[in-house]
Amino acid sequence: MAERLTTEARKQALGGIPDWTEVSGRDAIGKTFVFKDFNEAFGFMTRAALVAEKMDHHPEWRNVYKTVEVVLSTHDAGGVTALDIELARAMNAIAKLTPG
Amino acid sequence: MAERLTTEARKQALGGIPDWTEVSGRDAIGKTFVFKDFNEAFGFMTRAALVAEKMDHHPEWRNVYKTVEVVLSTHDAGGVTALDIELARAMNAIAKLTPG
Repeated sequence: MAERLTTEARKQALGGIPDWTEVSGRDAIGKTFVFKDFNEAFGFMTRAALVAEKMDHHPEWRNVYKTVEVVLSTHDAGGVTALDIELARAMNAIAKLTPG
Repeated sequence: MAERLTTEARKQALGGIPDWTEVSGRDAIGKTFVFKDFNEAFGFMTRAALVAEKMDHHPEWRNVYKTVEVVLSTHDAGGVTALDIELARAMNAIAKLTPG
């Protein structure tokens, strides 16, 4: 099972994944992605969903038109683990692929 | 443009779409869909996204694993319109199609 990262390890990992930050009041990391329109936003979600399903590690996320707010945490570990960092990195890579 | 439904019309429309309710503190309607797993939940979202995009009327929604919380309102009209009722009805129909 993935182990909860220490504060120091989490901070260091966050330095390598642009725009992800600690979620206030929770042991979780988050990022708000803003796209050109719904097509792009949901396209991003679809690609990320396939990655998440393959990892068997899923995001909490909220979509309103062109915006996708993502929160990542590992329920079983009670905090942020390497799985969250991996999914965050994958989401950044997917978002970069969108033309907008 | 779609016109905001009166309280009476909204109440009547809600009677025809099971489990949709008024969202407290907002002029909006909402429903929480619970599926078997992420595959089913995101499958539902994907089908609903295609309908929403075709209607050019989009939901606010939040997904956590097998749960999808949906809120519908028509921004331009400042409240619930026939578009929201139509999308709510379509979402119920899509959710019924899932085998779980």
